Amino acid sequence: MTPIITAFANSPDRGRGLARDTRVRWALEEVGQPYDVRLLSFAEMKAPAHLALNPFGQIPTWEEDGLALFESGGIILRIAETHEGLLPSSEAGRSRAIMWMFAAVNTVEPPIVDRTMVFLFEREEPWFEARLEGVEAQCRRRLEQLSAWLGEKDWLEDGFTVGDLMMISVLQRLGSSGMVEAFPNLAAYVARGEARPAYQAAFAAQLAVFEAAQDT
Amino acid sequence: MTPIITAFANSPDRGRGLARDTRVRWALEEVGQPYDVRLLSFAEMKAPAHLALNPFGQIPTWEEDGLALFESGGIILRIAETHEGLLPSSEAGRSRAIMWMFAAVNTVEPPIVDRTMVFLFEREEPWFEARLEGVEAQCRRRLEQLSAWLGEKDWLEDGFTVGDLMMISVLQRLGSSGMVEAFPNLAAYVARGEARPAYQAAFAAQLAVFEAAQDT
Repeated sequence: MTPIITAFANSPDRGRGLARDTRVRWALEEVGQPYDVRLLSFAEMKAPAHLALNPFGQIPTWEEDGLALFESGGIILRIAETHEGLLPSSEAGRSRAIMWMFAAVNTVEPPIVDRTMVFLFEREEPWFEARLEGVEAQCRRRLEQLSAWLGEKDWLEDGFTVGDLMMISVLQRLGSSGMVEAFPNLAAYVARGEARPAYQAAFAAQLAVFEAAQDT
Repeated sequence: MTPIITAFANSPDRGRGLARDTRVRWALEEVGQPYDVRLLSFAEMKAPAHLALNPFGQIPTWEEDGLALFESGGIILRIAETHEGLLPSSEAGRSRAIMWMFAAVNTVEPPIVDRTMVFLFEREEPWFEARLEGVEAQCRRRLEQLSAWLGEKDWLEDGFTVGDLMMISVLQRLGSSGMVEAFPNLAAYVARGEARPAYQAAFAAQLAVFEAAQDT
């Protein structure tokens, strides 16, 4: 059975590739696994049929041969473990790659998502400027630490892994803020990921969904 | 070689078991793996020797036979994969358990940590009450969704897994707020985890470190 993922019928990021289905599409493209997509409206995401797949009412989900998963991290690790190409062959290298996945979603992503939330929900509040300054300082600290680790390397460890896929996806969420660009090695790292044919295919696929939705 | 983890020499949570070494100790106790602990001052956490182990300057780290890891999620998954007892034997069950680890750290934990940060760093700000209300609403939404999923079950899936270990550790961070207690099935779920002998041993071990530090 071809796996089926879910994605926004009309992505709030307007096709910029920041919704979490893009990471899963990227992983599927890296390993050459074809997939189908079921598009969901916001109402459908909160309806019982989808909540049975993901109790938190989010996209993406993943279904294949009777197994259903949610959480981009869990889905991507499953893809990496059942195909060649996203995890090193050594046991130690494998654990290091998975460690970077957790670092991406649990240490680097939280302040970055927080920053987006400040823009979305606190823009009209009297404390907006002060909050933004605080959350950007937290983002900057993580970027500094990551930049120091990366140094002159191409990837976080020896060769591209699922850890890089997740970390680059997280860094992309800083969008046009210029915060990543303040660290030239991180900007080059993100560009290196985005230049991969698998990323290009994933980006094009999610953009096509958004563009089609505008025509209807 | 006995694995070595790092922990706070003087935990800011005052021995309440909320620092992330407790999760790792819990996993090690569940699988019956003895371990050593290296305690770090705040200055040592930011020094080059520790940054070489964890570029983000956090505890816990984990070292065994030349492999070093950081991020509690990455460490705990490694422990679960190299010992019996924390992951189901079926491939599907295994993927579901790992999915819950990611859900714990990437979907449930962020607003909970945010709430702690609001208390720690925004208490004197004029916007404190409004911010607290917002972040608690986000926490409550995740708790509601998790409670609906759990229902009358003992654990998130069939039998205790590393996903429960991580989810319960995350819920504990709501401490004495009463937010978990507003959902009786979640409160019973956390209590069920805390009643496990492995958790009790882990809690006692981290508390002993904090108490010893007060005597010196």
